[in-house]
Amino acid sequence: MLLIRHGQPGQEKPGLVLDGHRYDLSHFGEDFDEKFFASDGLARLAAFVDVQRELLLPIPPTTRLGPPVARPSKIVCAGLNYTDHAQEMNLGLPTEPVIFLKATSSLSGPNDDIILPRGSEKTDWEAELAVVIRKRASYVSEAEAAQYIAGYVLLNDVSERAYQLERGGTWDKGKGCDTFAPLGPWLATPDELLNPSRLKIWLSVNGEKVQDGNTANLIFRVPYLISYISQFMTLLPGDIISTGTPAGVGSGLKPPRYLKPGDVVELGIEGLGSSRQVVRQA
Amino acid sequence: MLLIRHGQPGQEKPGLVLDGHRYDLSHFGEDFDEKFFASDGLARLAAFVDVQRELLLPIPPTTRLGPPVARPSKIVCAGLNYTDHAQEMNLGLPTEPVIFLKATSSLSGPNDDIILPRGSEKTDWEAELAVVIRKRASYVSEAEAAQYIAGYVLLNDVSERAYQLERGGTWDKGKGCDTFAPLGPWLATPDELLNPSRLKIWLSVNGEKVQDGNTANLIFRVPYLISYISQFMTLLPGDIISTGTPAGVGSGLKPPRYLKPGDVVELGIEGLGSSRQVVRQA
Repeated sequence: MLLIRHGQPGQEKPGLVLDGHRYDLSHFGEDFDEKFFASDGLARLAAFVDVQRELLLPIPPTTRLGPPVARPSKIVCAGLNYTDHAQEMNLGLPTEPVIFLKATSSLSGPNDDIILPRGSEKTDWEAELAVVIRKRASYVSEAEAAQYIAGYVLLNDVSERAYQLERGGTWDKGKGCDTFAPLGPWLATPDELLNPSRLKIWLSVNGEKVQDGNTANLIFRVPYLISYISQFMTLLPGDIISTGTPAGVGSGLKPPRYLKPGDVVELGIEGLGSSRQVVRQA
Repeated sequence: MLLIRHGQPGQEKPGLVLDGHRYDLSHFGEDFDEKFFASDGLARLAAFVDVQRELLLPIPPTTRLGPPVARPSKIVCAGLNYTDHAQEMNLGLPTEPVIFLKATSSLSGPNDDIILPRGSEKTDWEAELAVVIRKRASYVSEAEAAQYIAGYVLLNDVSERAYQLERGGTWDKGKGCDTFAPLGPWLATPDELLNPSRLKIWLSVNGEKVQDGNTANLIFRVPYLISYISQFMTLLPGDIISTGTPAGVGSGLKPPRYLKPGDVVELGIEGLGSSRQVVRQA
């Protein structure tokens, strides 16, 4: 299944993509949130769709998409998780996953604007493969990790590099600004992706491709990350893990290049669709 | 008002402390969560208590207390925010607030056990004054900040120093472990505290006082922190800001001292009550 949420910010309703068309699932009566995933909502939804398939109402293509999961308890991100990106950032290869948290208030729809914080001069892009957690994960082994995956989704881990690296704090200051986590278009359940560790991932700015990677080059892969993070904290149903970005971010270019009002960012991952954000000033 | 939440983990009900006694507020019908604060629930609650005061039912003193606010969107922490603590950590005085996020899944009741993560050898304590946000705060000025405060609360910012500083990531890895944020006993609304910038704050381990500070020594005070953080991300109703800890943490001692199973941690802040955690192994 490909799960979406549609409607105005904060009032999104559930939906589904079938054969390339979007359908409303308001009458399913549940949001795609912690409670949904915790109570095996994916199985319930599959049964519902099976019965209702012919009765589903299409959504106009102009309808706004929200993030395909409701606000989770946390967004845990892996940094420097592609060799080529770690090199371009001059930060060395990690010997174990670099972990940080992204404020959940930064979540936005896949095609919502990216809003540059006031005074920002170094807002950058990062196309990433993210994973949504299906059930409570604590001290999970790498071998068991697949059972804990609700699905995969595209994330732009927007980052203000000056806030992240030059303002005397941890990375969190530059990672959690509002609109810095466009998520979606859809959450793809694991059966929809033949091989999540071999997916093309790309990002373009104003039509020029700047990131062109493959999840095959992840240093620490999804099952390892789930296991690793679950040694430090319990992952809750609906939580998001973002796996890091390949080379080609703006701060890695010579000279560096950052987003400015009017820029158009487009990104995608094979099987997970694409998203498009217009940049504007706060 | 002094707000509490009581009952089993995940099933807490609202309550109140009046004249040193705890009372149930289940029939108020709301939890102390984002929706409550966002809809001016504090005013609604005050009116409710005014009318119901004589009818409130006491809670047995043995009843467990939960965190006095329901899980918020985020816990934003200031690090190294007391001069003496910054010095003991050998990390230099910050020129602007050091900010990190604490996973909200780390929240626990004020008297719940602290669970040492498997393999942890450097779990440490940090008594802190925390603030709960009353309404959405974005680009707030220091002068306006007081309007955005729902109240104050005691927090133990439990920290695994090896995970925080020696595991190649940001601080978040050692800050967000389960049970690493005992919160409470109560949320005190601003009218209950004459002067939040002159409160004694202390912590003892097995009866020996190890932290003995005063919020007068905060480098960056509450209104400044609210204003500062709101430049980077929107603070949502119910969000928690923790303001940092004074000197006397275990890793600052010579030789360093860390928590071990059976240790008893007690901490308190003038006007905000005290909490007590027993340490055990995961």
